[in-house]
Amino acid sequence: MPKTKAKTKKPVVRKPLTLQQVILGLQDFWARQGCLIWQPYNVQVGAGTMNPATFLRVLGPEPWNVAYVEPSVRPADGRYGENPNRMQQYYQFQVILKPDPGNPQEIYLRSLEALGIDLRRNDVRFVEDNWESPALGAWGLGWEVWLNGMEITQFTYFQQAGGIELPVPSVEITYGVERILMALQRASHFKNIAWVGDVVYGDVFMQNEREQSKYNFEVAGVERLRQLYELFEAEARAALAAGLVLPAHEYILKCSHAFNVLDARGAVGVTERAHFFARMRDLARHSAEAYLTGREQEGFPLTGKFHPVSRPARPLPRAVKPKAPVKPQTLLFEIGVEELPAADSASARKHLLEKLTAALKEARLSYRQATVFGTPRRVAAIVRGLAPAQESIEVVVKGPPVSKSYQPDGSPSQALAGFAAKNKVDPKTLREENGYIVLRRTEKGLPVLDVLPGLLSAAVSAISFPKVMRWNVSAPAYSRPVRWLVALLGTESVPVEWGGLRSGRITRGLRPMNSPEIILKRSEDYLKTLRANGIEPDPAVRAERIRKQAGVLAAKAGGEVSYEPGLLEEVTELVEAPHVLLGAFDPESLSLPREVLISVMRKHQRYFPVQRGSDLLPYFLAVRNGKGEGEENIREGNEHVLRARFADAAFFIREDHRKKLEAFLPRLGTLAFQAKLGSMLEKCGRVEKLTEKIAPMLNLSTAQTADAVRAAHLSKADLATQMVVEMTSLQGVIGRYYALDSGESREVAQAIFEHHLPRSADDALPESPVGIAVAIADRLDSLAGLFAAGLAPTGTRDPFALRRAALGLIQILLARGISFDLREGIRLAAALQPIPVSDPVQAQVMEFITGRLRGVLADQGFRYDVVEAVLAAQGSNPLAARRAAEELTAWVGKPDWLTTLAAFARCVRITREYPEPFTVDPERLADGAERALWDACRKAEDDTAALSKAGTLTVDTLLAAFVPHIPAISKFFEDVMVMTDDTAVRNNRLGMLQRIARLPEGVADLSKLEGF
Amino acid sequence: MPKTKAKTKKPVVRKPLTLQQVILGLQDFWARQGCLIWQPYNVQVGAGTMNPATFLRVLGPEPWNVAYVEPSVRPADGRYGENPNRMQQYYQFQVILKPDPGNPQEIYLRSLEALGIDLRRNDVRFVEDNWESPALGAWGLGWEVWLNGMEITQFTYFQQAGGIELPVPSVEITYGVERILMALQRASHFKNIAWVGDVVYGDVFMQNEREQSKYNFEVAGVERLRQLYELFEAEARAALAAGLVLPAHEYILKCSHAFNVLDARGAVGVTERAHFFARMRDLARHSAEAYLTGREQEGFPLTGKFHPVSRPARPLPRAVKPKAPVKPQTLLFEIGVEELPAADSASARKHLLEKLTAALKEARLSYRQATVFGTPRRVAAIVRGLAPAQESIEVVVKGPPVSKSYQPDGSPSQALAGFAAKNKVDPKTLREENGYIVLRRTEKGLPVLDVLPGLLSAAVSAISFPKVMRWNVSAPAYSRPVRWLVALLGTESVPVEWGGLRSGRITRGLRPMNSPEIILKRSEDYLKTLRANGIEPDPAVRAERIRKQAGVLAAKAGGEVSYEPGLLEEVTELVEAPHVLLGAFDPESLSLPREVLISVMRKHQRYFPVQRGSDLLPYFLAVRNGKGEGEENIREGNEHVLRARFADAAFFIREDHRKKLEAFLPRLGTLAFQAKLGSMLEKCGRVEKLTEKIAPMLNLSTAQTADAVRAAHLSKADLATQMVVEMTSLQGVIGRYYALDSGESREVAQAIFEHHLPRSADDALPESPVGIAVAIADRLDSLAGLFAAGLAPTGTRDPFALRRAALGLIQILLARGISFDLREGIRLAAALQPIPVSDPVQAQVMEFITGRLRGVLADQGFRYDVVEAVLAAQGSNPLAARRAAEELTAWVGKPDWLTTLAAFARCVRITREYPEPFTVDPERLADGAERALWDACRKAEDDTAALSKAGTLTVDTLLAAFVPHIPAISKFFEDVMVMTDDTAVRNNRLGMLQRIARLPEGVADLSKLEGF
Repeated sequence: MPKTKAKTKKPVVRKPLTLQQVILGLQDFWARQGCLIWQPYNVQVGAGTMNPATFLRVLGPEPWNVAYVEPSVRPADGRYGENPNRMQQYYQFQVILKPDPGNPQEIYLRSLEALGIDLRRNDVRFVEDNWESPALGAWGLGWEVWLNGMEITQFTYFQQAGGIELPVPSVEITYGVERILMALQRASHFKNIAWVGDVVYGDVFMQNEREQSKYNFEVAGVERLRQLYELFEAEARAALAAGLVLPAHEYILKCSHAFNVLDARGAVGVTERAHFFARMRDLARHSAEAYLTGREQEGFPLTGKFHPVSRPARPLPRAVKPKAPVKPQTLLFEIGVEELPAADSASARKHLLEKLTAALKEARLSYRQATVFGTPRRVAAIVRGLAPAQESIEVVVKGPPVSKSYQPDGSPSQALAGFAAKNKVDPKTLREENGYIVLRRTEKGLPVLDVLPGLLSAAVSAISFPKVMRWNVSAPAYSRPVRWLVALLGTESVPVEWGGLRSGRITRGLRPMNSPEIILKRSEDYLKTLRANGIEPDPAVRAERIRKQAGVLAAKAGGEVSYEPGLLEEVTELVEAPHVLLGAFDPESLSLPREVLISVMRKHQRYFPVQRGSDLLPYFLAVRNGKGEGEENIREGNEHVLRARFADAAFFIREDHRKKLEAFLPRLGTLAFQAKLGSMLEKCGRVEKLTEKIAPMLNLSTAQTADAVRAAHLSKADLATQMVVEMTSLQGVIGRYYALDSGESREVAQAIFEHHLPRSADDALPESPVGIAVAIADRLDSLAGLFAAGLAPTGTRDPFALRRAALGLIQILLARGISFDLREGIRLAAALQPIPVSDPVQAQVMEFITGRLRGVLADQGFRYDVVEAVLAAQGSNPLAARRAAEELTAWVGKPDWLTTLAAFARCVRITREYPEPFTVDPERLADGAERALWDACRKAEDDTAALSKAGTLTVDTLLAAFVPHIPAISKFFEDVMVMTDDTAVRNNRLGMLQRIARLPEGVADLSKLEGF
Repeated sequence: MPKTKAKTKKPVVRKPLTLQQVILGLQDFWARQGCLIWQPYNVQVGAGTMNPATFLRVLGPEPWNVAYVEPSVRPADGRYGENPNRMQQYYQFQVILKPDPGNPQEIYLRSLEALGIDLRRNDVRFVEDNWESPALGAWGLGWEVWLNGMEITQFTYFQQAGGIELPVPSVEITYGVERILMALQRASHFKNIAWVGDVVYGDVFMQNEREQSKYNFEVAGVERLRQLYELFEAEARAALAAGLVLPAHEYILKCSHAFNVLDARGAVGVTERAHFFARMRDLARHSAEAYLTGREQEGFPLTGKFHPVSRPARPLPRAVKPKAPVKPQTLLFEIGVEELPAADSASARKHLLEKLTAALKEARLSYRQATVFGTPRRVAAIVRGLAPAQESIEVVVKGPPVSKSYQPDGSPSQALAGFAAKNKVDPKTLREENGYIVLRRTEKGLPVLDVLPGLLSAAVSAISFPKVMRWNVSAPAYSRPVRWLVALLGTESVPVEWGGLRSGRITRGLRPMNSPEIILKRSEDYLKTLRANGIEPDPAVRAERIRKQAGVLAAKAGGEVSYEPGLLEEVTELVEAPHVLLGAFDPESLSLPREVLISVMRKHQRYFPVQRGSDLLPYFLAVRNGKGEGEENIREGNEHVLRARFADAAFFIREDHRKKLEAFLPRLGTLAFQAKLGSMLEKCGRVEKLTEKIAPMLNLSTAQTADAVRAAHLSKADLATQMVVEMTSLQGVIGRYYALDSGESREVAQAIFEHHLPRSADDALPESPVGIAVAIADRLDSLAGLFAAGLAPTGTRDPFALRRAALGLIQILLARGISFDLREGIRLAAALQPIPVSDPVQAQVMEFITGRLRGVLADQGFRYDVVEAVLAAQGSNPLAARRAAEELTAWVGKPDWLTTLAAFARCVRITREYPEPFTVDPERLADGAERALWDACRKAEDDTAALSKAGTLTVDTLLAAFVPHIPAISKFFEDVMVMTDDTAVRNNRLGMLQRIARLPEGVADLSKLEGF
């Protein structure tokens, strides 16, 4: 009996679809949505987007609903058929919906269901992704769609093509056909995907993969392909000159493919790449413009020709006049959105709370408490105890001056009478204030319902996002499309209009449940109702739930969760109903570099690694949206993705290991660092030389110097490895691994890694002297060269991250306690550049670094004036500057500081106008105070000279040497008239004071201090 | 009530499918047949055949069932979107079935039904078509499939690709998607085909058609495209050198497309075209070979991987042992085939009758009567009264000579005893014949059933066809696939095996009825049963039925049928159940040239035109297969096709009329005549000059000469018109029309037409002197030039049809009674050639023409020796030669001819050994016979000289002048000893006889005559 029961509970297992069934299924599905079914382009393209059925048809106002397969060729992605997921050609299934049908995500999800993907038994997620094609001058915002952790679709709202803004944005849905099939069929390698009968994908395409990979990487004729590119471009231009858009487009794509082959062949440097892109973009722009002009001339003939794809079932809510509240009520305002990027979710809540409370305040609507909630699909505010009306306000109207308000008989003057009449009051009721007649009147506040609609609509608009998009012609730009609004005051629906939407009382449930409509009766029920529907609207609760579940599961696996800043917060914002799954991977994968494993899990998959102590365990924690059914399926899916990703990484590493790290260097020659500064290889050479030059400044031993030079030599080699090309964030990490594997010493390997540190604000810093040397040399080289090339950071532009480079220098020198003269460093770096780095430019670099140092010291709590005082003297040596600041801070805090400062200040101020130094003739000195000061001066000078010579001249020792002489200074000024008419005498005295004023030179500029 | 009735009878009218529904429908249909659904190639191709899924996969033994759409690009077919049927890009739907499933036609027809095409209400026909791709080194045999007269599909059994024979032939089915849609939707122009919603084909593709047409015809950069071709070729070679088949194939197709654009742009001459083809073919061959090698190395991995597409429902008939007949029976033998070409049908019947009766005779099987029948789908023989067994035969075995057969005592010798024992007879029964002991024995014939199976199987093989193909690995090559065999002797099934088939008693019915299986009970019922199933097996009956129906319908249209030799015979062989339909076309089309209308109707559509007197009427007669339902539909379909074809012709003529005929001449400069002989334009120039030179020889007046020169100038211009490019057979006809329309004189126009005559053996000959002059000049130019270029016809090769040219010259000169010295004509033509034409070559040309003349005269019944006699003397002037032959024939028939000949022969024979002429010294002559002969000789010489001078020296006058001197000759030989020892005397006599022997020179070589 239990057996039977189990059976009936088992879901119906359909045989998974074959490749051709998936394609036919998608064609059929989208045809039923009213799409035109189109065919692949007969020109090689990298993506369905390049097909004129997308690239050109998205332009202009005409409607266009289309669906088609596109064999997409990406020469650089070829892996000779060996990689399980990666091919140089794969099938896209491309859909364009123009205009936005209003519910494209829901239609898309129905298409997955049509392929046999049960949304409850699978974890389907929309994960932020922004798309851009530099060659086509096109971009859009949207998501990757994940199926159990695997990217199966790109979903984009197309914003621009050929450099032209799209007046009617298109929804672009690009399915990765093979990806879907691997998930459906649980295939371990693309070659095993069932196509028809016993024929698998490999039977059909393996030979092509192998041969095309070899052709692209090894055989293609570089010179011939360059010629082809030129000829294609010339034909494109000829076609455009004749007004022929489609032939031109064809040739632009041929350019693009020729470029892609050249690129895969390794024949395109970074700079050349940009140049190619610019040429193609220019062509694409011309062709887009020509297309638009032509369509306009023909009167946009497709207008009205498409039967629109299915629209949301429910029309806009009817506008019903709500009943006005008589007592305070709870306001619920929910903005229903398509999945917001994680960062946007958090900031939207923050903005909404700020803007809404500010608006309520400004509108004199009192309330008891305002809180915000949110998930990826909603941003909500709940305002409790919102007053039924605005607070009343007393209005003061100023009338005529009293002096002109009354006639001699005391009756109101004409002016007063007029004022009273205008304001409809009896002049007798008017009072005088400060010599004027004044009317005071209480204005009653408006009912809350009169104010709320506009206020809430404005609140939606007031939320700002770093990157916005448009999805239809009605709504303003936003992070992602807004699809519904709920505004309830108590039980009443408040009619808010925004972007073509009208608010109602219907919100949407969980995606795995097909986003059911949920009717909200009362605002107070909001949280309860959402929770009853499985949605947790409070991010803090979600985060806590994840942390708790993750902890339990990690423990089950014998370890603990490995958290990384930001990941928990991000994951929390990606789900409405978090549920953590424990997945496992092959322990053999643990032989991959730890950083690779972690990077793949965290960055690519948003998984939490599991560790025991510092050892990774072969487990991961994934957070699905929703819970219950299909857990096993989802776990397996996620495990498969991770397996494929690890296999991918293993492939790269295996490929890379065919040669030693040093052998990657030649490839750096093709990688431009910057046009004027040459290739990465040349930069590497400069860093190598500079490292050698600064080694003595850093007190490196001969052995350390040799290691540092070697490390510098290899410092950028890993940039050319496949692993780093694939995961740039692993730069340095991979260098270290490969260096060790290539037989380099531990010191060299570590320095290769360390020279990248710090990679971000809160990153670790290099520790080994060898690593520090290369890190400093690398940054000095970048700063000197790029400033000379005219690439000093400006307001918002800092493409080479020079701010971070400067800051890194400072952080390293401070943290490692290294006294280093950056000015000298810059000079040495400058001398190695291939372009002249003038003295002013060197000074500019120094000033730029000092600027960062100012910030660092200020952040460390030093007084502004103290910082300025030490920077003025020791800005080129961060360590010295900080020590000086510390000491100076101590002095400034002493009770008798002002006396000290005053004594010094008097010497400085009186000599300030005389930049030229006067010679002191001791013969001319009068006895007494004058000669005493002279003695003091000489004593202080001798003392500081001795300190300086001993290397111990600091603020402390300087001031200690100065303070004993303060009485002499005071006495001098009391007794001696410096500015006598006798020039010789006067200059003699000034000369003495000048020498005292100059005592702190190179230590601090005390004149910058407060109280000076 | 009748209304309701009519309603119920009405067929259910489904809304016709849209374009995308047709494509989805075909994908779905073929997927259900087990085909792999493939995608269009991402390289521009002219046909789905070029997709590697066809071109490469058809190679070698592996199975492959595939179906896919292919956007096919044919730059030269662009019409700027104006033509209703023609585009530079259209959709093919391509299917490959490998191996042949056994019933591919039936599966194909089911696919049409799946698209809503009811076979009973439509006329679907398989019309012979042979396919060849010179660029790919590929060919195959099969059909065009017609739907109500419109070609909707190419159906081919692929025989060779890349120059490699295919061990497993593939079935290739290529649907013309737009064609099917135009038929389904009855669209008048491709732009109106419904695609989806309100979107029509023109909305999607019109801009592309216009722009690509303009690009291909006007804008494409010729020099750049040539460079592209070279670069593509180089890449293809590089890929092949690295063993990379698929990248190479890609580049071969890119070559092909670049060539096609160049061609459309008018930049490729005929010779250059051939050169391009050879280069592509060479690449294709290498790539095919490399592919095959690779597949073989991998062990042909697809083997066994496909689930075969549906097989014929019925397996092979079981082999049942038939009962032997005891009395004569009727034999039925039917070979069931896929539609045979019309000519093959007729010859197959003839062969079958010959081979079968010969085989029966050889097998000593007597019969009463043997007849053959047949339709496109069957070849059948009925043998009545076939004996139940072979006739008995008496065998004679020769024994020892009588002399050695008996011992002295009369008893048998050892030899005789041995002979008797060996033959198991009593020596006493042996008789003697002609001195030998002889055994006579009657051997009984075998039962007919022992002999028939092998005999019938051999009869199938014995039918030979001019062009054969293979369709599977079991059967030998044949005209088209054999699909069933029926062999019945009376009621018994005779088990015949051939090509993997086994005969049974099941034949197939009409295609419109879905080819139902028909069980034949008795051989005698064959004709009756077929007729009951609507099939008329007797071609004579079918022809008569067509003639009768056509006559009635033509009369209904007010005219009579316009028959042309061969068309009725052809149409008769194209249907099993002929039914004639009367269709109409727009009378406006009658403004097109009559020859165009007729050519389109007859050659393209196999329609009979309808005429009244010499006027065409706007009607046509089409013959459908089957009758009854859908007549209106089929008529409309045929009318549409004709409308489109006429529109196409009208389009060409309209396009052509944008310029005058003369303006087409420059284009001839790009059209090679022959590599060494330059372009057609150059040839035209030569013909023009030659015409002027031979005009006096033809006695043309000055005005006629001017006309002839003008006509020659324009003679080939129409070759460059679109109308002639489209319908080559209208060359000359179109030239005449366009000449008149361009303002040329009637004489010039007529000569442009006439100079092509005769175009074939039984064609008309030019009549006007002007036309004759150009015709002769044209042919002389071809002969002189092409012989000099080394292109004299060899055994089977005569690519320039020089035999016909020579024959044409002879026919014209004879028919028009023109005396013309061809030797001089050749000399004049030779002098104009761009290459030297040596005397021996000129002689070779003359000899070649004389060779044809020999045949002509022999065909006219002249005795061989007479022909030789006149040709030896007058071979260069056909008219004179024939007159001479006539006269000589008369002389030879005279009773005293031998005397005449003998007299002459004596003079010739005796002088034959002395090629050098001896001077006759009259002084040395002895009186009497010798002097008398001298007088006779001089008289005859004087007479012939006078005749020659008067131009009246013929065989008649010559012999008349000779005969009177015969007595003198006889007397001379009687009285005079010629060969005396006195050399001087002898030579004197010989000299006299030499002069007599030379009398017939230039008239006839009498030594060639019998009896000489």
